Amino acid sequence: MPITAKDIFNNLEDVRRQGPLVHNITNYVVMNLTANALLAVGASPVMAHAAEEVEDMVAIASALVINIGTLSEPWVRSMRKAAGKAREKGIPIVIDPVGAGATPYRTRTVLELIQAAAPAIIRGNASEIMACAGAAAATKGVDSAAGADTALASARRLSEQHKCVVCVSGETDYIVEKTNTAMIRNGHPMMPKITGLGCTATALCGSFAVVNSDFFTATVSAMAVMGIAGEMAAERSKGPASMQVEFLDALFNMKGEDIEQRLKIA
Amino acid sequence: MPITAKDIFNNLEDVRRQGPLVHNITNYVVMNLTANALLAVGASPVMAHAAEEVEDMVAIASALVINIGTLSEPWVRSMRKAAGKAREKGIPIVIDPVGAGATPYRTRTVLELIQAAAPAIIRGNASEIMACAGAAAATKGVDSAAGADTALASARRLSEQHKCVVCVSGETDYIVEKTNTAMIRNGHPMMPKITGLGCTATALCGSFAVVNSDFFTATVSAMAVMGIAGEMAAERSKGPASMQVEFLDALFNMKGEDIEQRLKIA
Amino acid sequence: MPITAKDIFNNLEDVRRQGPLVHNITNYVVMNLTANALLAVGASPVMAHAAEEVEDMVAIASALVINIGTLSEPWVRSMRKAAGKAREKGIPIVIDPVGAGATPYRTRTVLELIQAAAPAIIRGNASEIMACAGAAAATKGVDSAAGADTALASARRLSEQHKCVVCVSGETDYIVEKTNTAMIRNGHPMMPKITGLGCTATALCGSFAVVNSDFFTATVSAMAVMGIAGEMAAERSKGPASMQVEFLDALFNMKGEDIEQRLKIA
Repeated sequence: MPITAKDIFNNLEDVRRQGPLVHNITNYVVMNLTANALLAVGASPVMAHAAEEVEDMVAIASALVINIGTLSEPWVRSMRKAAGKAREKGIPIVIDPVGAGATPYRTRTVLELIQAAAPAIIRGNASEIMACAGAAAATKGVDSAAGADTALASARRLSEQHKCVVCVSGETDYIVEKTNTAMIRNGHPMMPKITGLGCTATALCGSFAVVNSDFFTATVSAMAVMGIAGEMAAERSKGPASMQVEFLDALFNMKGEDIEQRLKIA
Repeated sequence: MPITAKDIFNNLEDVRRQGPLVHNITNYVVMNLTANALLAVGASPVMAHAAEEVEDMVAIASALVINIGTLSEPWVRSMRKAAGKAREKGIPIVIDPVGAGATPYRTRTVLELIQAAAPAIIRGNASEIMACAGAAAATKGVDSAAGADTALASARRLSEQHKCVVCVSGETDYIVEKTNTAMIRNGHPMMPKITGLGCTATALCGSFAVVNSDFFTATVSAMAVMGIAGEMAAERSKGPASMQVEFLDALFNMKGEDIEQRLKIA
Repeated sequence: MPITAKDIFNNLEDVRRQGPLVHNITNYVVMNLTANALLAVGASPVMAHAAEEVEDMVAIASALVINIGTLSEPWVRSMRKAAGKAREKGIPIVIDPVGAGATPYRTRTVLELIQAAAPAIIRGNASEIMACAGAAAATKGVDSAAGADTALASARRLSEQHKCVVCVSGETDYIVEKTNTAMIRNGHPMMPKITGLGCTATALCGSFAVVNSDFFTATVSAMAVMGIAGEMAAERSKGPASMQVEFLDALFNMKGEDIEQRLKIA
């Protein structure tokens, strides 16, 4: 049964109602934006990375989001520890392989984390997903030099290998799991001009995975909400910074009809 | 004698005139916002956490703000070192026990810091203040699950125990010291939707404590200015992100009559 | 031959066309703003600081920007390592001596980094440049207590000593190299009220140094674009936070005629 605008809005409303605590171990660049985006959709963000407490924080959290954007060894150790606890507890883990493929350290580290975490969802851009799947990928630091469609085969392989949902975001977002594929054509070309929107998408996936244990639908919902907020923001702004402000406000104010009128899913 | 709008504005004007250097050892999520808020009220922020330099930075600073939001051992060691120097030098220390009660590590660490620092002011939400005072507190990561009024007895106990001003912020902010209690009913329900406004309040307390050594009045002034800026921002914005922008602009532009017309103190 | 508005716009257009990957090892406070500013001028930012990967990241980058704002030993080690690789590879290195002079650790560390990196460009405020040149400087944490003109002799000495471009930013920006001096009188008094605009200027110098190997002209271009964006933003905003938003939008939208009409160079 295809996912409808109504399903997506219901998921969003469930996030708003339940206000799930989402534990993020993420990068310095996007922490503030991620926290504000989680608040804007109604979730409750917490950022904590000390080895001394990550397990205790996971114990009270409803989802764990791991993002390797500005990784270093102490943080990776805590990511592993948190992932172990989250897996034991059975809460969804979402991994963002920021910059995978850009350096061997990044690729190696995120593969180990994926192995250890058995994530519910992996979300990245084309080159990151290709790097995670072992394909040669054209990367430009943390930006992808390849379109999302190019990474589709990699996404399928990665999904099969780790029994998880894989999302490749780009002009079209591809969400794959087993034989299922969804394409979201919402969003706006200005979105990559705002740092951290990919990381934000990953965090939203975490919050939606709490309210819908069908992680495929949860991911589709989160990506649709992201794309629609991006479109609405682009129409109301005149550059990337005003667009970021409008983006968060649009997340906060999103109505059922916004999704109904704008959703482009296939 | 009750604290008046005029007193509060005088404190704000003194911060603007003196531009005190406020040394912050704070969390990654809010550093940018905190620095901008301190600049907006006229203070001069500095963020430095290396063990090699925190004492030297304290030596040129007029206040020290310690915030455990994204604590880890190297940072805690520097917080202790900086606190030792600030205490020796006699400048006001303000502590924000972010997430106290959420994990044992957080609670234990902040209690040790409070003990070591003998702070002038402790500012937190209800569950954080309750955790610091040893009361069982309902926490949700870094957000409080209890109203500020619930924490009033804890605030009094904490204030007595450490001979300091304690502020519990919430819909009503309670500021207590010895037999004194002030209530600020300014602010807006959207404020918790912006990450880091609590941390910002703590930093403002630091800057106000420089210009008014009556730390009770300094804290009341800082919290009133926060709440009034929040109200003004809410009226001019349509979501949490535009509200954050308006909040900082309101801090920067606040006039005596804004305080005069809006202050709700008891 | 004097640098014209046309030269500056050509450099900006080259950044937009080439989209150079700029590797930043910078401070926590400004990472988000710096990344957004680099995106706004058309560059591709990457932030990475782990010793395990900085050399590999430099290997794919076109410029390296080192900023000591929230330095600590592990980060300084990575800065050294990255600088070594960048020097070997021959890509431009830009150093921002944030807070040099405020603590001995800062001053010592940045001097070692300058020595090791042989940077193309050093950009700082007056007191930072004076501290780097060994002059007694009045500093206020990370803000300068001296005007840019006071630091001119220090800038010349530093430039000569390290065979690099030195930029002292302030009300007037001074760019010096050998016998060349340029003065940019663009900008707005509100700019220092926004945290991280100095760090942003440094990052822009990095992106301009990729497209113009005449680092003097590259620096002049970057500083002119900064100042002009600041002016445009100030006209459209009502406080420091709305000005930051307008600043990034102005960077993104800047046209040849904006530079033509506004440039104040001598």
